[in-house]
Amino acid sequence: MGRLTGGDPSLLRRINSAVVLHALRAAETATLTDLVNDTGLSRPTVEGVVEGLVAAGLVEEAAVAEGATRRQGRPARRFRFRVEAGHLLGIEIGPHRIAALLADLGGRVRGSAHVEVPAAAPAEERLEKVRTAVTDLLGRTGVPRSALRAVGVATPGIVEADGTVRLGTALPGWTGLRLGERLRRSFRCPVLVENDANAAAVAEHWKGAATGSDDVVFVLAGLSPGAGSLIGGRLHRGFGGAAGEIGALHLLGREATPEEVLSTTGEPLHPLDEAQVAGVFARARQGDEQARAAVARYLRRLVHDVAALVLALDPELVVVGGWAAGLEGVLDPLRTELARYCLRPPRVAQSLLGEAAVATGALRLALDHVEEQLFAVESTVTARR
Amino acid sequence: MGRLTGGDPSLLRRINSAVVLHALRAAETATLTDLVNDTGLSRPTVEGVVEGLVAAGLVEEAAVAEGATRRQGRPARRFRFRVEAGHLLGIEIGPHRIAALLADLGGRVRGSAHVEVPAAAPAEERLEKVRTAVTDLLGRTGVPRSALRAVGVATPGIVEADGTVRLGTALPGWTGLRLGERLRRSFRCPVLVENDANAAAVAEHWKGAATGSDDVVFVLAGLSPGAGSLIGGRLHRGFGGAAGEIGALHLLGREATPEEVLSTTGEPLHPLDEAQVAGVFARARQGDEQARAAVARYLRRLVHDVAALVLALDPELVVVGGWAAGLEGVLDPLRTELARYCLRPPRVAQSLLGEAAVATGALRLALDHVEEQLFAVESTVTARR
Repeated sequence: MGRLTGGDPSLLRRINSAVVLHALRAAETATLTDLVNDTGLSRPTVEGVVEGLVAAGLVEEAAVAEGATRRQGRPARRFRFRVEAGHLLGIEIGPHRIAALLADLGGRVRGSAHVEVPAAAPAEERLEKVRTAVTDLLGRTGVPRSALRAVGVATPGIVEADGTVRLGTALPGWTGLRLGERLRRSFRCPVLVENDANAAAVAEHWKGAATGSDDVVFVLAGLSPGAGSLIGGRLHRGFGGAAGEIGALHLLGREATPEEVLSTTGEPLHPLDEAQVAGVFARARQGDEQARAAVARYLRRLVHDVAALVLALDPELVVVGGWAAGLEGVLDPLRTELARYCLRPPRVAQSLLGEAAVATGALRLALDHVEEQLFAVESTVTARR
Repeated sequence: MGRLTGGDPSLLRRINSAVVLHALRAAETATLTDLVNDTGLSRPTVEGVVEGLVAAGLVEEAAVAEGATRRQGRPARRFRFRVEAGHLLGIEIGPHRIAALLADLGGRVRGSAHVEVPAAAPAEERLEKVRTAVTDLLGRTGVPRSALRAVGVATPGIVEADGTVRLGTALPGWTGLRLGERLRRSFRCPVLVENDANAAAVAEHWKGAATGSDDVVFVLAGLSPGAGSLIGGRLHRGFGGAAGEIGALHLLGREATPEEVLSTTGEPLHPLDEAQVAGVFARARQGDEQARAAVARYLRRLVHDVAALVLALDPELVVVGGWAAGLEGVLDPLRTELARYCLRPPRVAQSLLGEAAVATGALRLALDHVEEQLFAVESTVTARR
């Protein structure tokens, strides 16, 4: 149990400030009277809070609309939340590409950048590509680097709380890389690093296939699946940041690696060669027996891994993304098998965000960070319910 | 996001009341001056709050100790939290037995009862045994039924939020039983029903092998394992209350049932015959080849199921309880295998509470419920950190 302290008048001030900012953000513009009505606070309190928010650059008086001036008397002053008071970046650093999204404080995307990277590129080259993509994006959108309030970064691997990649076999030189620290040199704002499947889970919950559910498992279905989970709407990272690394389950039974599972020749596939993998699925569709057997093995493995997640967590919804999500015959077997042994099988949906999921999630994590600062008191207030 | 309301003066009053009660409970007795110092509240506020708590029967003036009266002047009045102001029950309803624990508001156990039940007993007989055990326990301890503030009940199966057993194959007539509703007829206080592995997880966290960790998987290792998980110190029930039902994983691969896995004859064991199961383990220790093979199959299955939980959740600690926990050769293979493929393998510990874990967890859930009412505002205050 945390230490309890007595009733704190500054707590009340912070609650009031968050309440007003929240009401202002929900409305396009609001008068002081609107805010008094929306918040239940007294007019002097609202006036004091709005004054403070204007001084902080987060709120400004809105220009008076044409029609309003024609009415009798002085029109009431209207205020608006300045979504342009700061910007955010969401960056995906993947095996094949780097993607970046730029958004305002309202979370609206203002620009994006995509750069291809060779799968074999060493860490330094990959980081250099990130820096170039960001510089280009800021230049194109005319947003100064100093306007960035937070940067979210998502990448394959197990990521520690400080942004160090504890294990990241998908990218050369990634394991042990102090990714957060390296990127913080390029930005003066907080840089948050997250596992890619975790970020995608957050993204689908924000504006994808999982907007209606707070208990979600997102499966990033590739050769070896990763997963991200939301429990009660919050990301579940696990004690060591490794929650959802279910792809390791097959190691236990000394079973074949994913590269062997999908092989039609006995020679394992290259883990990052998506074209080679797609070729196996294409040949299976054309009736090639060996390819069909390989795909069947792959699906069985995927279903088993997802089933383990579902039994452990009992989510409402499973969202499947990653390159394998679009493949024919992935979702239906999953639904069928989950229905077989789950009392209340979760819904299974395909990712709505597709390739954009990871960068979008990184952006959302940056936005969460900024909102936590702006609305620091909100969790306190909502916890009261 | 929850609806935000403005600063509420009654919130402050409730915070103050919870703060004082918390300080009183932490100390054996406390003077008003102690409480002023402990809470940072003003003396008039503390006086008002204590007066209210005395009126509610939760606090009383403590008798003045002998030594104190000899000092000069009138000794300061001392107050104490009345742990005897209410009582709680924790009840385990298992396949073979019913166990009940009675405790005061401080969570201190004041008495217990144990009753054997035939595994084949129908639901009505089992419920009748519960009622008898409770009546005996209350009679022996001299606690009137009206003094019960909450009753926690733990039982195998998937339990819905309202206390209905959605699936409970271990007990005859259990599936579909409105267990909460049935038991509420015997009590005038809230009755909380929980899955047995979930309750055991809570118990080990309270006073068992998991007191030092908030991210725990408790495995109730029997023929088919169940599990309960704490995430950030809170029970994770899952969307449908079925989280941790990892025993179903083997169904997926159309694998042998647990009763077949442990069989040495080809004939499946009876799922509830613990003596028969213990016999297989005993013969394995004596070197019986078939028994050893059966035990090896059983352990491989258990390790796999626990591994799936660990990969999904990434806990700090795995606690193994249930009858299989005490068997030789259960914990070590688990540790070895988890270490093989987990980057940061969880610690693996044996249950400290043993047979008492489930009833103790049920008691803790009842205590949690009462504390939530007494300290309703606490989560608000701690969330502020």
